Amino acid sequence: MGKEIKGFSKLSKEEKTNWIVDNFFKETEASKIILKQYWNDDENLQRLHDEFSENTLSNFYLPFSIAPNFLINDKIYSIPMVIEESSVIAAASKSAKLWSSLGGFKTKIISKIKNGQVHFTYLGEKELITSYFNYIKPTLIQDTETITSNMKKRGGGIIDIELINRTHDMKGYYQINVSFDTVDAMGANFINSCLEQISKSFKEKSSLSEEYKIQPNDITIIMSILSNYVPECIVKAEVSCKVEELDKIENYENYSEKFVQAVKIAQLDTSRAVTHNKGIMNGIDAISIATGNDFRAIEAGIHAYASKEGKYKGLSKAKIENDMFNFSIKIPLALGTVGGITNLHPLVKLALEMLDNPNAEELMQITAAVGLAQNYGALRSLITSGIQQGHMKMHLINILNSLKANEDEKKLAVEFFKDKIVNNRNVQNYLIKLRNSDEL
Amino acid sequence: MGKEIKGFSKLSKEEKTNWIVDNFFKETEASKIILKQYWNDDENLQRLHDEFSENTLSNFYLPFSIAPNFLINDKIYSIPMVIEESSVIAAASKSAKLWSSLGGFKTKIISKIKNGQVHFTYLGEKELITSYFNYIKPTLIQDTETITSNMKKRGGGIIDIELINRTHDMKGYYQINVSFDTVDAMGANFINSCLEQISKSFKEKSSLSEEYKIQPNDITIIMSILSNYVPECIVKAEVSCKVEELDKIENYENYSEKFVQAVKIAQLDTSRAVTHNKGIMNGIDAISIATGNDFRAIEAGIHAYASKEGKYKGLSKAKIENDMFNFSIKIPLALGTVGGITNLHPLVKLALEMLDNPNAEELMQITAAVGLAQNYGALRSLITSGIQQGHMKMHLINILNSLKANEDEKKLAVEFFKDKIVNNRNVQNYLIKLRNSDEL
Repeated sequence: MGKEIKGFSKLSKEEKTNWIVDNFFKETEASKIILKQYWNDDENLQRLHDEFSENTLSNFYLPFSIAPNFLINDKIYSIPMVIEESSVIAAASKSAKLWSSLGGFKTKIISKIKNGQVHFTYLGEKELITSYFNYIKPTLIQDTETITSNMKKRGGGIIDIELINRTHDMKGYYQINVSFDTVDAMGANFINSCLEQISKSFKEKSSLSEEYKIQPNDITIIMSILSNYVPECIVKAEVSCKVEELDKIENYENYSEKFVQAVKIAQLDTSRAVTHNKGIMNGIDAISIATGNDFRAIEAGIHAYASKEGKYKGLSKAKIENDMFNFSIKIPLALGTVGGITNLHPLVKLALEMLDNPNAEELMQITAAVGLAQNYGALRSLITSGIQQGHMKMHLINILNSLKANEDEKKLAVEFFKDKIVNNRNVQNYLIKLRNSDEL
Repeated sequence: MGKEIKGFSKLSKEEKTNWIVDNFFKETEASKIILKQYWNDDENLQRLHDEFSENTLSNFYLPFSIAPNFLINDKIYSIPMVIEESSVIAAASKSAKLWSSLGGFKTKIISKIKNGQVHFTYLGEKELITSYFNYIKPTLIQDTETITSNMKKRGGGIIDIELINRTHDMKGYYQINVSFDTVDAMGANFINSCLEQISKSFKEKSSLSEEYKIQPNDITIIMSILSNYVPECIVKAEVSCKVEELDKIENYENYSEKFVQAVKIAQLDTSRAVTHNKGIMNGIDAISIATGNDFRAIEAGIHAYASKEGKYKGLSKAKIENDMFNFSIKIPLALGTVGGITNLHPLVKLALEMLDNPNAEELMQITAAVGLAQNYGALRSLITSGIQQGHMKMHLINILNSLKANEDEKKLAVEFFKDKIVNNRNVQNYLIKLRNSDEL
């Protein structure tokens, strides 16, 4: 049991590193070197990054990349994307370029409301708690004013507060549902702070008015927390063009028709829907990370929305009507362009500037377009050459690197594997033969 | 339209950087410096990271951190986690320590099968395609042998192939469903390569036997692709102890009971379920990224699984039976410890070594325990002090950094805000007062 430790978080970074490598690694010096080779030379910058989290030992690199030529609502963007998976950026760029020649992406905000709940139990009469809620409602809003004043100045704040009776689901269970407009902030801290204040006031102030016969002890606050389910914070993105134009530009027979079929399959088959939506998230997460947004929140909200009709479905739709091809997506996206790490992480600030410093609504629209482009790219590969051709080309480079191939060997290997199956063994065999030949 | 470009991917990194900063930034030199300050001094290491993706301009830092004291199946782990959100690591560490004193996490693999599908249409008679499928099935498996031979040596490969009639969903729509054991690989490339080979053989070889009256042109392959929906790749993790022990150690009245209520709410309310599961994913994604796994695939599979009963639900369960508290999670997790970037990214290799080089089943179990610990930590905060207390303490540091507070100012601010509302304005006001006072 020698690998347990007390007070780890209190140790310095150096001490933490020493303890970890001494207890979990055979080659302690080599492991330290690996951790330290990722430190930034600039101590202040490194400290900033260390303090984003706790017990930080090093920086994990993810590629910060660019997908150019996105034409969205008649404006051209280069999209900053952070993702470790090969061929995602290539696919996004290819889709963007194609659609920029066909009028680009059209996007719009459908709605932009977020919610949070105070979950509590009360075992008394329903009418009493309802009356008390209606009585105290203005006070609940008033008591959040020190928290909401700045948000109000920016045009946001609390939109509404309502009491929801859930006693049919669980004994004595009620919710106070609060809806918010958080303007350009994702707003998690803001919403949670408001909710905690509301729950405190709601419980404590029940003693103020005797007529409702409710005492603070009659109300048990279970928890107060924002919801990452944001079905009222919706953005739509679409592309469209003549069927014959698309079939011609993709140079594939019945391309549009087959594309529509592939999208339909994701609507009716869960196994396919999950992977279909995963491809959309490749794009959405990549721009979300680059712009400092919390991708776990976005993932949860979007996937839950995909199951809103009782069956998990694909998030995009495609149709052919009057010889016009239309491909669209409608998704919940609670994004922020202020707060969180957006004004702290230097590359996030740079990413936002690259996008012309969008407000939250603009970023939602750009992000939805990126998701649609990513979905388009994956489907195009799938219904034509198959996904592996492009994927394996990029994967080949990774395998070559793992086998420590030099630049000349890489070039020859890429050429050789153009029409062959790429896997570890085949690439290894090829390299062995190559190194034994005179070709280099 | 000067911001469009042809052949961007063909440019060198330097040329790409120049084009981006010239076209999208006001301060071109300053922007270049920001991008370059994240480059690694070691050119070979930098090239390796650049090649994980396409059009890479720099490295995006995410904190590489440690949550120690995880007791899982009687073995102690320090968990490598990569996440930008403050307080996640602190919460995981705290949960781990608590449960290590109560017997730790118990985990097990329930099943470990992955699936992929060839989606195709065939408009002829159902009986004919079924007969043809049964006839060609051994050949389909045989034709993948160059792809599967290595996987077979490691104990995996194709488990079964079946034809599924989906013509009631869409005209002429069938699937060939293939199930796989990919041993220690996540296996996406392996599965997709097999499926593409199977689809090719299935279509082409229909001409071989005249008795089925099927020609290659009668079969239209729509696509061949693995599924990230993995409801047969399931791992379970749980903790349990006496109710009185837990209530005592958490030092909170009716703690266990309230905890069970909070978990139940995530079962019955979608708004809560999404956020509940998001908290689980904070932990699961953080270890998945650190160990080189594709978190979009994991997210999609888990959230779809959360909706498998027709309603999106919380993924964990809690109960009190015979004075015993039990908290558990059962989730799909298709993880790999070989292939992909696992043996390429130096910090991923280090993370896997820190976990004693687990195989895929072991990593699934460790990861499920981390998810459960994260969920426990979030729920504990929510039902006791509220989530904001811990969150805001960490967030305070970020705000102080954004206001360029020095180390002395930070210490005083942390002390001052212990019992006060943390937001940008309040911290700013505090700093102004502090800087005008004699305290420093």
